[in-house]
Amino acid sequence: MVSDLRIGIDLGGTNLKIGIVDLYGNVIHKTSVPTGCGPDFVVGSIVATVNTLMKRAGVGMNQIATVGIALPGLLSTRKGVVIRCANLPGWDGVPLCDLISKALRKPVAMENDGRAAAFGEYRVGAGRTSPIRNMVMLTLGTGVGSGIILDGRLVQGHAGRAGEFGHSIVKLGGELCGCGQKGCLEVYAAASRVHNRALRALENSSAESSLRSIDFRHGAPTSSDVVEHALSGDPLAMQIWDETCRYIAVGCVNAAHLTDPEVIVLGGGMAAAGDFLLRGVTRHFREQYWNVELPRADIRITEAGNDAGLIGAALLAGEVSSVTMANQFTENIKAPVVVSLNGCPTENL
Amino acid sequence: MVSDLRIGIDLGGTNLKIGIVDLYGNVIHKTSVPTGCGPDFVVGSIVATVNTLMKRAGVGMNQIATVGIALPGLLSTRKGVVIRCANLPGWDGVPLCDLISKALRKPVAMENDGRAAAFGEYRVGAGRTSPIRNMVMLTLGTGVGSGIILDGRLVQGHAGRAGEFGHSIVKLGGELCGCGQKGCLEVYAAASRVHNRALRALENSSAESSLRSIDFRHGAPTSSDVVEHALSGDPLAMQIWDETCRYIAVGCVNAAHLTDPEVIVLGGGMAAAGDFLLRGVTRHFREQYWNVELPRADIRITEAGNDAGLIGAALLAGEVSSVTMANQFTENIKAPVVVSLNGCPTENL
Repeated sequence: MVSDLRIGIDLGGTNLKIGIVDLYGNVIHKTSVPTGCGPDFVVGSIVATVNTLMKRAGVGMNQIATVGIALPGLLSTRKGVVIRCANLPGWDGVPLCDLISKALRKPVAMENDGRAAAFGEYRVGAGRTSPIRNMVMLTLGTGVGSGIILDGRLVQGHAGRAGEFGHSIVKLGGELCGCGQKGCLEVYAAASRVHNRALRALENSSAESSLRSIDFRHGAPTSSDVVEHALSGDPLAMQIWDETCRYIAVGCVNAAHLTDPEVIVLGGGMAAAGDFLLRGVTRHFREQYWNVELPRADIRITEAGNDAGLIGAALLAGEVSSVTMANQFTENIKAPVVVSLNGCPTENL
Repeated sequence: MVSDLRIGIDLGGTNLKIGIVDLYGNVIHKTSVPTGCGPDFVVGSIVATVNTLMKRAGVGMNQIATVGIALPGLLSTRKGVVIRCANLPGWDGVPLCDLISKALRKPVAMENDGRAAAFGEYRVGAGRTSPIRNMVMLTLGTGVGSGIILDGRLVQGHAGRAGEFGHSIVKLGGELCGCGQKGCLEVYAAASRVHNRALRALENSSAESSLRSIDFRHGAPTSSDVVEHALSGDPLAMQIWDETCRYIAVGCVNAAHLTDPEVIVLGGGMAAAGDFLLRGVTRHFREQYWNVELPRADIRITEAGNDAGLIGAALLAGEVSSVTMANQFTENIKAPVVVSLNGCPTENL
């Protein structure tokens, strides 16, 4: 039997998405479970979930060529080691590729989730149309992930850190970002910041707004709340959304000047706003773009959606040179540890 | 006889530099003349200067393989046509490659001067050391030119516009740039802006400063004046220079996050400040860079210097696919027109 299938894993801070992907990036079968905490637990959970998924799909391990993992944060993709991962505490220094390779007995590669999503989107989503060869994707979620495709290839840079638009400085001396820099794009364009902006606007103004009717517990108003109220015509929500679109457009202007892509794709949670996001960002993009010539880049909303990361990881694992193949597949993986009530194993807390 | 030499031309707003370059990027012979005005005149001047240079060097046209031209502004490198060139008025739409190809009877390619300089620097300057494969160059002159090398190749993007760091927005809602955008890196980091910053500082402060002793005609204080006075310990000049270094460092932070290069090279007129520039920019780069990990990119001063552009253009012309080979070499080029006193032919004024 030919090994022409791949496993793609999107390891997020909240959910672990796993799919069986064919050579063309089609997701044959997929599943999602809560991530849980700590490397031991998560590796055990990945192995168990992969096995369950394959059994359910009637796919044998001999049909799987490679495994690709997308996860947030700073990675040494060449060594297959997590360097620093803000949303996955306790993972620094973990040789994730080696652990998964030993457990599943397959070659494993890893990629930053923003870059994996960009590659997935390029292959099967909004960037798939020929003759697109250059694309930038901005993933607008809790943070701003991103990836650059140039001449059909994912840009990695010297050590696999390239394409980090979220931490490019767009407002010198601006607000402090979690990364320690001031004025990063992420501080202005992430979905999580829409919440802050809305709270601040409500506090600093006595203007009537339907946003005031929201139950402010559980992180509300979220970017979805703002979109919903803006679409209903609330002036304050419209203003906050417009400002958000203007910030995202700065990221698009810079992406256009730096990489001259045919397409800029907007993904992540905020892309759920669809056309409302696209119209706002495109308008501000055109307004802010230089007057030397008309913008050439086409802005689009993600088409691969939530699967972009796992598809990209699966496809990249079959193509990159930095695949980890554990020397010994004999070492047994630890069984998943008992999960505490908050979803995290106590020994990892 | 083997055609193993190339002609490199750096067509600036003020000077026209022409060199005969070997396969390895060594400049065998070179010359420089004032640019003059208008395409007809300049094409004539290029042809005459190339012929004189070759005669002087004892090099025959049969030894020349290709001709490469670097010039500022927006180009259609594939068509060999100038689109818009702020420093060379009257050049919009000129099929420069075709004109030169017909006159010199050689294949001709063109590239934006910032990108050509980056390629030259990568091959023979501060980026030549193996195993450097990724490099960004910022050319700090009247404007901020730039070019990106990724995996050993000059990044062109979809239509040859990529790598434009000078017009990436680093201060949202900042000062207006000549391009129509607000807050471009060029508005803060170009040598020409040091002059503005110095004038403003002198006007807005009554502090004693040795800069006040300068004869303010002829564009003074220039960035060289500011460097000279800062090196002599003048507090105001030191403050202006420090601020300039901080702005340039933002460009370096963004270059590091976006392309993850081994090396960032500072070139252009301001690079004459050498170690004084390097120390200031490196310090601010380290201060502003995120705290997720230490900076990996090494900042260096240009080693190819003023020849980077013509070397890069010469080497690129031998490698790019977009070389213009005039169909007919029979058409005669117009003789250079008479030059008026200010160096510009009257019919082009």
